[in-house]
Amino acid sequence: MDGLWYTENWIPGINISLKIKTKLYEEQTPFQFLEVVDTDVWGRALFLDRCIMTTDRDEFIYHEMISHIALNTHPNPERVLVIGGGDGGVIREVVKHDAVKSATLCEIDEAVVRAAKEYFPQIACGLDDPKVEVLFADGVKHIKEHRNYFDVIIVDSTDPVGPAEGLFQKEFYQCVYDALKEDGLFVAQTESPFVYPEIVPGVYHSIESLFPVTREYLAAIPTYPGSMWGFTMGSKKYDPLNVKKEDIPALDTKYYSPDMHFAAFVLPPFVEKLISE
Amino acid sequence: MDGLWYTENWIPGINISLKIKTKLYEEQTPFQFLEVVDTDVWGRALFLDRCIMTTDRDEFIYHEMISHIALNTHPNPERVLVIGGGDGGVIREVVKHDAVKSATLCEIDEAVVRAAKEYFPQIACGLDDPKVEVLFADGVKHIKEHRNYFDVIIVDSTDPVGPAEGLFQKEFYQCVYDALKEDGLFVAQTESPFVYPEIVPGVYHSIESLFPVTREYLAAIPTYPGSMWGFTMGSKKYDPLNVKKEDIPALDTKYYSPDMHFAAFVLPPFVEKLISE
Repeated sequence: MDGLWYTENWIPGINISLKIKTKLYEEQTPFQFLEVVDTDVWGRALFLDRCIMTTDRDEFIYHEMISHIALNTHPNPERVLVIGGGDGGVIREVVKHDAVKSATLCEIDEAVVRAAKEYFPQIACGLDDPKVEVLFADGVKHIKEHRNYFDVIIVDSTDPVGPAEGLFQKEFYQCVYDALKEDGLFVAQTESPFVYPEIVPGVYHSIESLFPVTREYLAAIPTYPGSMWGFTMGSKKYDPLNVKKEDIPALDTKYYSPDMHFAAFVLPPFVEKLISE
Repeated sequence: MDGLWYTENWIPGINISLKIKTKLYEEQTPFQFLEVVDTDVWGRALFLDRCIMTTDRDEFIYHEMISHIALNTHPNPERVLVIGGGDGGVIREVVKHDAVKSATLCEIDEAVVRAAKEYFPQIACGLDDPKVEVLFADGVKHIKEHRNYFDVIIVDSTDPVGPAEGLFQKEFYQCVYDALKEDGLFVAQTESPFVYPEIVPGVYHSIESLFPVTREYLAAIPTYPGSMWGFTMGSKKYDPLNVKKEDIPALDTKYYSPDMHFAAFVLPPFVEKLISE
């Protein structure tokens, strides 16, 4: 292990070490420890509290998959809220949709947005779009201030420890429900069913107890622990599986596609079992 | 990093370290360095030349996905050959199919089979099936001794360095073609298109230049580098996408399913682009 290496504790009992060219930035923000490093293999990477958040090499997978399935399920997603997601990657995907008239980013930690604009311009680029408003506020609090307001809410959070803990609880999902219009829908990153089988079912059932349509889907994200990553959609009306493939607009994407819109919902039987128990 | 840890070089610039309970076995075989360790998170793991081959926790994904798509594409896979796969996991899946009358495992290194029987009995269990013959021989040599003989060939190899190097070359695929019956098909693990974009297209095009039907599919294998893992099928006649879903038999599986049979072929656009260039 010659040279500089960055070691992340993926999960207890598994560490991953990335050879790095240089460390560009670090800051103890009021909320978390933020680092930007240039790695040999994954390109530039953002770490929060020593967990990898995004890398130049694979950020497209997470950002496309958390955004486009929701936005192509809602027939007219005019008003969109993104909770978390301070790197701007989700917003960049959201503004690709012509139907979107306003997109609000509600990020608790302004340091993340600042670092993204400085060090990840190709991820943060959407933040300057005229349709976009950036708020530095607590997402839970912001949600509670709105009723029957948003068409689509995207919860792009860190893991359910630290600042994002409240974003994995039923009380929060109830607030999301209330903040959505009567035909609104939301999606959240909900961890890996392979690595965190103890987290996924509880989150899924919390959402299922509130929303008439609840759907789990997966994407393979190489830099996240276990990589087989789960997203959960809660919808008041529209079902992502009832979208007509021919209605899905052509988008400039590298992981999402009209076929992937449906294939992502095909769960391995062990995941089906996990969320049906 | 207290206690015992096993560090694997996933790819140059990325190491993964697994906390281990104990090391159970090691042997320098004539072909490779073999180790069996009990890990905290992935359960028992087999390493060859310090690369993870199989773990109790996720072996089902690889073994199901390399076997059942091929065996459910061929309408009558009576005679099956498995090259490599000394742990027995592929054979265990192969013998789940009633149509299979004989399954030959051709493993170059008898130490792998010996260690699997001793330390991974639930993976190696199929090796004692009366339909199974185990040969300790060079897979390339064995293939060359047969013409128009097998219905299905499964190439369960290590990476294209070391003993498996020859299993990724066009000359080998030509031998596979010749060893298959006129309606035969084969499948091989062909590495990760995300981590090894420089390997995947060449392998795909070699197979495509020989077989009328060539199809790439993916599975998420958490313990393999990059996890988004590729398999390539070359078929003389049958197309896995033309299988009727209702004809797929019910099998006791945890990752493969009739729906996954098709979803696995939905490639992200960046992979489509990689193999179409």
